[in-house]
Amino acid sequence: MKVGGQHFRTIWLNPENERLVQLIDQRFLPHRFVIEEVSTVAQMATAIREMHVRGAGLIGASAGYGMYLATIEAAGSGSFDEHVVNAAAQLKATRPTAVNLTWAIEWQLTSIAKGKTAQHKIDLALRTARRIAAEDEEHCRMIGQHGLKLIEQIARTRDGKPVNVLTHCNAGWLAFVDYGSALAPVYAAHDRALPVHVWVDETRPRSQGSKLTAWELGQHGVPHTIIADSAGGHLMQRGAVDLVIVGSDRTTCTGDVANKIGTYLKALAAQDNEVPFYVALPSSSFDWTIRDGSEIPIEERGAEELKRADGWRDGQMLEVSVAPEDSPAANYGFDVTPRRLVTGLITERGVCKADEKSILELFPEHAS
Amino acid sequence: MKVGGQHFRTIWLNPENERLVQLIDQRFLPHRFVIEEVSTVAQMATAIREMHVRGAGLIGASAGYGMYLATIEAAGSGSFDEHVVNAAAQLKATRPTAVNLTWAIEWQLTSIAKGKTAQHKIDLALRTARRIAAEDEEHCRMIGQHGLKLIEQIARTRDGKPVNVLTHCNAGWLAFVDYGSALAPVYAAHDRALPVHVWVDETRPRSQGSKLTAWELGQHGVPHTIIADSAGGHLMQRGAVDLVIVGSDRTTCTGDVANKIGTYLKALAAQDNEVPFYVALPSSSFDWTIRDGSEIPIEERGAEELKRADGWRDGQMLEVSVAPEDSPAANYGFDVTPRRLVTGLITERGVCKADEKSILELFPEHAS
Repeated sequence: MKVGGQHFRTIWLNPENERLVQLIDQRFLPHRFVIEEVSTVAQMATAIREMHVRGAGLIGASAGYGMYLATIEAAGSGSFDEHVVNAAAQLKATRPTAVNLTWAIEWQLTSIAKGKTAQHKIDLALRTARRIAAEDEEHCRMIGQHGLKLIEQIARTRDGKPVNVLTHCNAGWLAFVDYGSALAPVYAAHDRALPVHVWVDETRPRSQGSKLTAWELGQHGVPHTIIADSAGGHLMQRGAVDLVIVGSDRTTCTGDVANKIGTYLKALAAQDNEVPFYVALPSSSFDWTIRDGSEIPIEERGAEELKRADGWRDGQMLEVSVAPEDSPAANYGFDVTPRRLVTGLITERGVCKADEKSILELFPEHAS
Repeated sequence: MKVGGQHFRTIWLNPENERLVQLIDQRFLPHRFVIEEVSTVAQMATAIREMHVRGAGLIGASAGYGMYLATIEAAGSGSFDEHVVNAAAQLKATRPTAVNLTWAIEWQLTSIAKGKTAQHKIDLALRTARRIAAEDEEHCRMIGQHGLKLIEQIARTRDGKPVNVLTHCNAGWLAFVDYGSALAPVYAAHDRALPVHVWVDETRPRSQGSKLTAWELGQHGVPHTIIADSAGGHLMQRGAVDLVIVGSDRTTCTGDVANKIGTYLKALAAQDNEVPFYVALPSSSFDWTIRDGSEIPIEERGAEELKRADGWRDGQMLEVSVAPEDSPAANYGFDVTPRRLVTGLITERGVCKADEKSILELFPEHAS
């Protein structure tokens, strides 16, 4: 999507040296637009763990490129296979909840295993990394087209007034390679001149809504308003939300949705106010091995993230202390929204109900 | 309650000069404990509007003392009555949602009107200001005793493990003259050595949970954990919350509850997980004139409060910018939780259901 009028993806190869991966270091947004160059698995693991890159699809694509870097490193090491296996373990350990991470690494391991020589393995890993990224982009584009129909439907009842979409966290193009999941339908609508307005949950404690979603919508010219995470229910009670669309870090084959902490509360409010609640996800975010959302591991992050706030001041990122130094804090990254609260899933193959039968009708290759 | 082992109230008269009001300036908590001295109506209006003092009961008590200062000023002005009426209007305009503000000012106007001379009016206003504060304190103490029974009941099923109470915003002693509403039962339980633990919602954008609730619980030695506003649903899904207790800025005579934005979302999660959801309030927070929660005016505060974060760094309060400068934000202060989601109201006269009949059985003098 657009940054200052120029088209960007979130991750790409340095066009002058394809052994280097470039990515937008999202920690500095919206204050500074920083491009980071990554040349080692260790750097990529840090970039994922420390959230220079984040979001289901982008974590997958980054892991894909990370495994490509692993093959380059492996060629210069004593034992190619051992190095690749270790790199896979290192990358897998960075974030526990996003299933795309494992999915991308497994795909790479299968690809790399087919190589006859070190150079062949590197070539295969490069091709797969590109395919993972291209597929992510294409799936998000398709999610946009399918979700667009939902927005068009509502727009017909709004008499030219904007369709109000509420979203939580960032499931925009910054969370993927391009387009995004939850925001792809919004961009598709905006690009077709359908009036659309987004309520942006700030999404504490890392404020991905205020920092990333607001920024990317603003850069692309989409009208939006930042709200506290607590405000969505009030807006729905007042009829100010026509549609909720969120992303997902992992969705079970039965339709339970793990997403950023607080998603469940918005789903409850949507149900209570009869607002449609959609989850947009590429098929790479399904976990076909888990039947119940309660089995999804929920990442707990450090307490300091919650007790402090960071932002821009005097030309630099500064962290300030909000809570008492000696008060403990618990920082859960995700929650699980049970399928009964989900109106539908928007996937690259179309929109379906959040139940096993409907999901497997769209993805019959995963029926066991 | 205790601050560093010493007993404090939130507002009091300077013992050496009763024409001066002293209050804890809560803007600096938890980082510094600052006492502000207020000698004019204008200063008191600023203290309420700019939230040096906040919380239903404390806003009422502050307005009571503010009207007392108004009579002192009036005695030195050309027209006593005009000055008092203007002061009342000035104080009423500071915050729109808390009904205690109007309630305290009306009580003062009735008292002052009974005075025969300026000095008599001042004496009456002083007596009334003290009564408003003393009544607030006593009502909160009683709320603690009634709410304690609910905690005791749950404690009997917990086999010595702590009773987990979730609260939103600050309805502790800092929001009243002493004891608090939502936290009064917690303090009562803790003081009786019942094991109790509080999940403290950070309560963006002003972070009253992280800043005030965590601080006052810590000062009094009550175990607690700060969580994101989004985390309460997840904790309830996991069985980690036994009881929700929140305060109220205004409750209708039919039981609809206006409280800090986000309360409604917690009430939905409590219902979905069969967790009892109680609202603690002194009778001064009832609005006997309103039958439907949707009629309660909801304060909207400045967008900057949401787009920035403030905290302590290098020995001073600092504000950092979180969101893009050109992104708009909407900052609703309160929401309304419909009575169907409220298990019960904890008042100074006992616990009742959140419906008109039950409320009027406890407060028959308000039956029309």
